[in-house]
Amino acid sequence: MTQDDVTVADLPSNWGRWGGDDELGTLNLITDEVRARAAAEVRTGRSVALAQVIQPVPLLSGPFAQGTFQVPPVQQLMSYTGTTRATADLMLVTNHHTSSTHLDALSHQTFEGQVYPGRPLAEAVTPAGVRHGSTATFGAGIVTRGVLIDLAADGPLPAGHAVTPDDFEAAEEREGVRLESGDALVVRGGWKYLFDGVPMPGLSEDAVRWMDRRGVSIYAGDIGDAHPPLVPDAPSPLHTVALARLGLPLIDAAEVDELAAVCAELGRYSFLLSVAPPRIHGMTGIPVNPIAIF
Amino acid sequence: MTQDDVTVADLPSNWGRWGGDDELGTLNLITDEVRARAAAEVRTGRSVALAQVIQPVPLLSGPFAQGTFQVPPVQQLMSYTGTTRATADLMLVTNHHTSSTHLDALSHQTFEGQVYPGRPLAEAVTPAGVRHGSTATFGAGIVTRGVLIDLAADGPLPAGHAVTPDDFEAAEEREGVRLESGDALVVRGGWKYLFDGVPMPGLSEDAVRWMDRRGVSIYAGDIGDAHPPLVPDAPSPLHTVALARLGLPLIDAAEVDELAAVCAELGRYSFLLSVAPPRIHGMTGIPVNPIAIF
Amino acid sequence: MTQDDVTVADLPSNWGRWGGDDELGTLNLITDEVRARAAAEVRTGRSVALAQVIQPVPLLSGPFAQGTFQVPPVQQLMSYTGTTRATADLMLVTNHHTSSTHLDALSHQTFEGQVYPGRPLAEAVTPAGVRHGSTATFGAGIVTRGVLIDLAADGPLPAGHAVTPDDFEAAEEREGVRLESGDALVVRGGWKYLFDGVPMPGLSEDAVRWMDRRGVSIYAGDIGDAHPPLVPDAPSPLHTVALARLGLPLIDAAEVDELAAVCAELGRYSFLLSVAPPRIHGMTGIPVNPIAIF
Amino acid sequence: MTQDDVTVADLPSNWGRWGGDDELGTLNLITDEVRARAAAEVRTGRSVALAQVIQPVPLLSGPFAQGTFQVPPVQQLMSYTGTTRATADLMLVTNHHTSSTHLDALSHQTFEGQVYPGRPLAEAVTPAGVRHGSTATFGAGIVTRGVLIDLAADGPLPAGHAVTPDDFEAAEEREGVRLESGDALVVRGGWKYLFDGVPMPGLSEDAVRWMDRRGVSIYAGDIGDAHPPLVPDAPSPLHTVALARLGLPLIDAAEVDELAAVCAELGRYSFLLSVAPPRIHGMTGIPVNPIAIF
Repeated sequence: MTQDDVTVADLPSNWGRWGGDDELGTLNLITDEVRARAAAEVRTGRSVALAQVIQPVPLLSGPFAQGTFQVPPVQQLMSYTGTTRATADLMLVTNHHTSSTHLDALSHQTFEGQVYPGRPLAEAVTPAGVRHGSTATFGAGIVTRGVLIDLAADGPLPAGHAVTPDDFEAAEEREGVRLESGDALVVRGGWKYLFDGVPMPGLSEDAVRWMDRRGVSIYAGDIGDAHPPLVPDAPSPLHTVALARLGLPLIDAAEVDELAAVCAELGRYSFLLSVAPPRIHGMTGIPVNPIAIF
Repeated sequence: MTQDDVTVADLPSNWGRWGGDDELGTLNLITDEVRARAAAEVRTGRSVALAQVIQPVPLLSGPFAQGTFQVPPVQQLMSYTGTTRATADLMLVTNHHTSSTHLDALSHQTFEGQVYPGRPLAEAVTPAGVRHGSTATFGAGIVTRGVLIDLAADGPLPAGHAVTPDDFEAAEEREGVRLESGDALVVRGGWKYLFDGVPMPGLSEDAVRWMDRRGVSIYAGDIGDAHPPLVPDAPSPLHTVALARLGLPLIDAAEVDELAAVCAELGRYSFLLSVAPPRIHGMTGIPVNPIAIF
Repeated sequence: MTQDDVTVADLPSNWGRWGGDDELGTLNLITDEVRARAAAEVRTGRSVALAQVIQPVPLLSGPFAQGTFQVPPVQQLMSYTGTTRATADLMLVTNHHTSSTHLDALSHQTFEGQVYPGRPLAEAVTPAGVRHGSTATFGAGIVTRGVLIDLAADGPLPAGHAVTPDDFEAAEEREGVRLESGDALVVRGGWKYLFDGVPMPGLSEDAVRWMDRRGVSIYAGDIGDAHPPLVPDAPSPLHTVALARLGLPLIDAAEVDELAAVCAELGRYSFLLSVAPPRIHGMTGIPVNPIAIF
Repeated sequence: MTQDDVTVADLPSNWGRWGGDDELGTLNLITDEVRARAAAEVRTGRSVALAQVIQPVPLLSGPFAQGTFQVPPVQQLMSYTGTTRATADLMLVTNHHTSSTHLDALSHQTFEGQVYPGRPLAEAVTPAGVRHGSTATFGAGIVTRGVLIDLAADGPLPAGHAVTPDDFEAAEEREGVRLESGDALVVRGGWKYLFDGVPMPGLSEDAVRWMDRRGVSIYAGDIGDAHPPLVPDAPSPLHTVALARLGLPLIDAAEVDELAAVCAELGRYSFLLSVAPPRIHGMTGIPVNPIAIF
């Protein structure tokens, strides 16, 4: 089947699979068995962080602070504390920023006016915050087995490449690993989210169908949905199908080069993955630094 | 020796121990051996989060948002995205807030006008952000062995109690565990940071000296420095001595009741601890959800 | 004609009156002749401010700032300037807040999906700011003759009262003044915007039709649209008809008690009115302190 | 006397002139007589705004907003209101920004650790806001006679020029006007606050002494203190002497080219000046759009 044949009725969906009130989505797939499989990966305690560094700029650009040339994901303001003993600050965070490794909550994307698993948008997302499918889902942290699918072992994916199930399965074979139900899928395409006009590769809808069949619980990658979209008028596979229909949380803009180097060095592409953003409820997304532990 | 005998010259210090440019402080104590010890704790993959839930309120209290009665650690603003397909928001975070589980960076506190390990405040902390001893220290995440010292197994500590080395060692004996160099010390006193006038218990200076002797790499607790201070005119032990002089990062306002229950259930008070706040550099502190993995 | 007879076709409108690109609305009515009439009111230079006082609370409620019990229109953060010679701060302003005297821009309200004078909402108001009908309209300041219609000379209006043209004309006769084309209408009802459950009085649709006939250029009042609405399913007269259809800027939540006292003392209910908010373009509204000069 | 002879004891000061609790400073000079003089200037109602246009950029630079290349004085965030009938936003304002026409409050600058008229800094400016000498001073608006001293009638002042009393008096003679006690001094130097390396001209200390002798109540200008300072180690005349010692409020970065054109056209360099920022108390400064009325 080609992308052209896709109709909405065909799109995979988990709406209703875990009930109409569910807020965990595919995180339901992380069973005790999956956790034990993750635990078995931990041998030396060596760890790798999967987040890009965020270097904030001062919120103030006036007479007392240096200039800046771009509004970044985090803006900082140093507080006047009335003392030189303690220092303090606050930060203004753009939760969905392409230069920030962040976790999309299930309410971030709608499908036909509804958020997972079929709640009307206006009921889930209000001017006063998110009432269903917010970052509350991630409050206890997510610990599961992670598998790196390195599609850039021989260099970055070609511009505009549509990642297919074949790409995934070729990598599994090359790496000697198999992604099981409940696992986290970590994808390396060798790209940055630059939006500089060069067509960024991304997952095809078939790739998302494959993720559904395999039981992926959570996705992280240095690539995601292609930009510009692979199929202009079709739903974007990761955000619209995986996030909104499958309830599969997405970690956008992950940094996985060091992870790939460590996996290659150890000859092992699976690990325990700990995903624990600040325990702030009610958001549509939040910055996170996922940690792979070997 | 009593608290009255303390002079500044006596206070423990790591200034210079790892050089004049060091920004890791006691995190230097987390060696490969410590990591392996942490890894050995991971058996089932069961995990516990150590952060309090933060429930933000809308930044707007105008005609379109509900009222609020307290300014919390996080204020949220739902963005107008010009579409109903995607939702987005931003958040304004007060990094040092007593209702938020957060990680203090080494620059948060000074000792005699200097931050660890002896840098002048004005050089380290500027109106445009932190140049030394910021949250950059935590960028790679912290993975080490954690040990829970549960001082509230028989109920909350008495009001105003000064926690001593004897308290720590009695707990170790009771729990059958010994805190080793490089471990994270997690303390449960059975209190909340309420500041409601009831004197909150806290660590004595001798307790901090004990932490120095044992080689604690990082501290987390539902208690910390007493409030009001145990010794009015002496430096507060955790913030001034441990954080500013030892370079020992502090996790304030941790939530450890569930952790204590799981430790008691498993008969095991040690675990792998993963501490991975968003990878945002340049701050004096940042919210975090530490994860204990068994 | 009663309110029940109103149909949309009947509603007064200035869409097209000054062209399809107009952003001034009824401010077009302020001619040289109107300005000269305003100038003639200035005799002693005595002046009265028409804004409520806004007392901000600190943005931080953490360890270094006092608590707060309500999120106000303005939140303040004192900056760390790295010096004791200069102090600085910033403020986060909720432009449309019922405790703030503010000026609504023409884009604040739509009529059937369009802003004055018939521009599609999505074209005028974008996620990146307002492109048509923003506060840019007020950049040069507004100077015109103001007339106070004091409906509360004998005490506040009754709860839920619908202000009618008869109310306006009775006040004109009592005060010996007549509102002319281009004048600013300043209304005193003797109420505060409390939203405490007591039905707040407000202008009827007939009152807005009267404003249209008389050529009011701008409205300021301590009352505005009734709350709850006078006619549940009809458009709110001031915001939907005057602002969105007539292009008549509104000053919400003005403070006019001192103005009324001065008018009574001088036996004169007309004055020069200067309305000059900060010259910030692109907003849907902005705080303002209108000044009446006698 | 040359600048080199200046000692602190010589500097003019109003500390104590209007008592130790005064928060009006030189605004005390605006008497009924001054106001009547201002009123007499109003003949046609023609008006000119003295503020630069501020074009905000979106606070969000993420996927839903356009990029930006500089952090401006005002950042905007469009609110999600849950409806298409009303639009709303908020703005984050850097009160002291060199691209914004703003009014400095008396607490903005200290002299030897004190703010006007001799209050210790820590007592006046706290982490929770300003307790003395804040923008509360401007709550009722300022209406007085304004006089334009156009030093750029024949082109911009030379780079690095130190404005002297002779410059002021030559302009008075040229314009046929005399600045009297209580008047607002509006200065045009023909410069913008660019800080591009070219030495910006500014007022000498003698110019500020002249302002003191003449009884200037408030200052506005497109130039102010020179940048870099005229005398490196001496106090900056306008901010340290006029603002901190005389209690003379300053309007930084005014836009006065249109005003100069209108004055030249009318052959009249005096007018009524209305200065009415939003009535927000407790700030160290605030954006304002001063209005000259003829």
